[in-house]
Amino acid sequence: MQRVYLDHSATTPVRKEVADLVLSYMTTNYGNPSSIHSFGREAKKALENAREQVAGLIGAKPEEIIFTSGGTEADNLAVIGTALANQKKGKHLITSVIEHHAVLDSFKYLEKQGFEVTYIPVDEYGLVNPDHVAKAVKEQTILLSIMHVNNEVGTIQPIKEIAEIIKSKSQDIIIHTDAVQSVGKIPVDVNELKVDLLTASSHKIYGPKGVGCLYVRKGTKIEPRYFGGGQERKRRPGTENLPGIVGFGKAAELAKQELKQEMVKLSELRDMLMDGILKTIPDVKINGDREKRIPGNVNVSIRYVEGEALLLSLDMKGIAASSGSACTSGSLDPSHVLLAMGIPHEIAHGSLRMTLGRDNTKEDIQYVLDTLPGIVNKLRAMSPLYNK
Amino acid sequence: MQRVYLDHSATTPVRKEVADLVLSYMTTNYGNPSSIHSFGREAKKALENAREQVAGLIGAKPEEIIFTSGGTEADNLAVIGTALANQKKGKHLITSVIEHHAVLDSFKYLEKQGFEVTYIPVDEYGLVNPDHVAKAVKEQTILLSIMHVNNEVGTIQPIKEIAEIIKSKSQDIIIHTDAVQSVGKIPVDVNELKVDLLTASSHKIYGPKGVGCLYVRKGTKIEPRYFGGGQERKRRPGTENLPGIVGFGKAAELAKQELKQEMVKLSELRDMLMDGILKTIPDVKINGDREKRIPGNVNVSIRYVEGEALLLSLDMKGIAASSGSACTSGSLDPSHVLLAMGIPHEIAHGSLRMTLGRDNTKEDIQYVLDTLPGIVNKLRAMSPLYNK
Repeated sequence: MQRVYLDHSATTPVRKEVADLVLSYMTTNYGNPSSIHSFGREAKKALENAREQVAGLIGAKPEEIIFTSGGTEADNLAVIGTALANQKKGKHLITSVIEHHAVLDSFKYLEKQGFEVTYIPVDEYGLVNPDHVAKAVKEQTILLSIMHVNNEVGTIQPIKEIAEIIKSKSQDIIIHTDAVQSVGKIPVDVNELKVDLLTASSHKIYGPKGVGCLYVRKGTKIEPRYFGGGQERKRRPGTENLPGIVGFGKAAELAKQELKQEMVKLSELRDMLMDGILKTIPDVKINGDREKRIPGNVNVSIRYVEGEALLLSLDMKGIAASSGSACTSGSLDPSHVLLAMGIPHEIAHGSLRMTLGRDNTKEDIQYVLDTLPGIVNKLRAMSPLYNK
Repeated sequence: MQRVYLDHSATTPVRKEVADLVLSYMTTNYGNPSSIHSFGREAKKALENAREQVAGLIGAKPEEIIFTSGGTEADNLAVIGTALANQKKGKHLITSVIEHHAVLDSFKYLEKQGFEVTYIPVDEYGLVNPDHVAKAVKEQTILLSIMHVNNEVGTIQPIKEIAEIIKSKSQDIIIHTDAVQSVGKIPVDVNELKVDLLTASSHKIYGPKGVGCLYVRKGTKIEPRYFGGGQERKRRPGTENLPGIVGFGKAAELAKQELKQEMVKLSELRDMLMDGILKTIPDVKINGDREKRIPGNVNVSIRYVEGEALLLSLDMKGIAASSGSACTSGSLDPSHVLLAMGIPHEIAHGSLRMTLGRDNTKEDIQYVLDTLPGIVNKLRAMSPLYNK
């Protein structure tokens, strides 16, 4: 059976050039970067090379990169680490209602610690209005965290405009963006975006799982979230996951090289898929903004069908898609992102996310377009809500 | 040049069977275990298989294993996560002075949060006396954390005796042991040891870096240390590092199979190295207990030489060793473990740790024994302290 993987926002395969490198750092160059012998020094050199590669992808300085175990840890470090480190200046924080749970739940934790959090709403396309953010700023505000690209609907937020408006009110407010879903997919530059902290993840850009990073602009006060050895300038202890980090570095380098061509290719495939669905299936709604959207993201609500039934039917045809983010797939609640965009409960339940990647072809998309309408017809025929 | 790696307590090479498996989970079976499509389900199955393998190595139930990014994160989760979750019962904690910094610094953090910590001393062999622990228990005591095997001197602590004496005083006191340096090296069974929490790390047992676990006995109250998705039964969020976890599982399975034969082999090599050093180099002291010691650990203080100069000289001959733990190698302070054992400052500075592993041979050890005396003589000849 043909297998078409359309869940690249959940995770990506590690590309061969990267996997080969990871392998060699597991078996041959296996030293601990903290050791002073030659095995350790070679490891240390590879660590710093990877730091340069990752920094290069986002326009940062190498020393501003802290490697973590992934996006979740980096988001937690960013939000909780800066809130706790700067609480003497104030205890008010700002975020949006559509953040990833790694950010949202960090803010929930801080609320329990006595911080006040303002949650900015989004419009029907999932966009944050910079004016709303500006109005939320108080004298006590110390941190703002708004994601760069939403993981479900692919909407690109106006981070630069938000950052400018915030910094015009106070230079002291720290700005974080969770860029897990934008890095490697669209141009991301920390200076262009004017952010102080930025989260990225390796396994979303064809690098290994278990590694990510937090960019921390020089001078930004941040507390570590856990304790031990002096690694990562004492901000993230533990033996470095060197094979993972080296893989992340290589994946970042390759992503930078291929960014433009991939953007063109994935935009074409995405539009082919979206337009094809709109043409062949009635009662379908595109979720998110059609223009301010990353290249590989398709998110549609298909009325009168249940998302989970849709996914399982697609899966039986070899097509891997998702209803929302993988991280909340165990839950039966509809997406908090779609609900925040004002999409009714019953329609949010019938949402389908297909996220394209570098191995996908026109043939893959055609296969989906040949398969999906039949599945939808079948499910709708069984639905008591359809044609009433 | 011959290269002899004698720093297996810092990190180990990933064995081939494990590396091959990690590779296949990076490139072929790359799904996110939280996804409901076939890629995800295959990933989930592999995750649970690895959990069984790791549990099997330490006599635990699979559902009692929480995968983490490594030993440091697991130690932090154990110490801080249980202290915070159980603080209503009391705020007194017990640990030893020779713990790894991932444990020690977690306790330092808790002290700042208003907890009281008793630090148990060790004797000249680095051993904790169970009676000292018993005397430290108060009505307010909620947690005890004593490492199973010390990372520097390889001393095996009487964890079972300590646990029994503690539990006889109060069943409610939670017992944690950092077993990063014992798992896979000597028999470790959570029920035999009578512990509630146990930390293990993959890269110390020929598995990949960036993955470890915390064993949490059913019923033990623990708070997560960070926040996000619902992975690991909501106790450790973030996309699972599946290739790493699968590698850890395989490494655990192999370690279990080969434990006895490796113990015999490494004990022989260790004794050959220790005895050879004692025979050929004067003014040398073995650090730690000769009997209650893991098979692969040699730690000697060589008077009138500087540890760092020794390491660099060995390195030039292709021999990779360390002076203490890799995690603190950037620091010029002498080992807190050796100082706690009552070893004078100037002798602690001349300590040399050589930790053997499965690829080491008698020829390797003979090469060290042929090389080390000459290096020591040379360094001593330059020392103003020698022969005075």
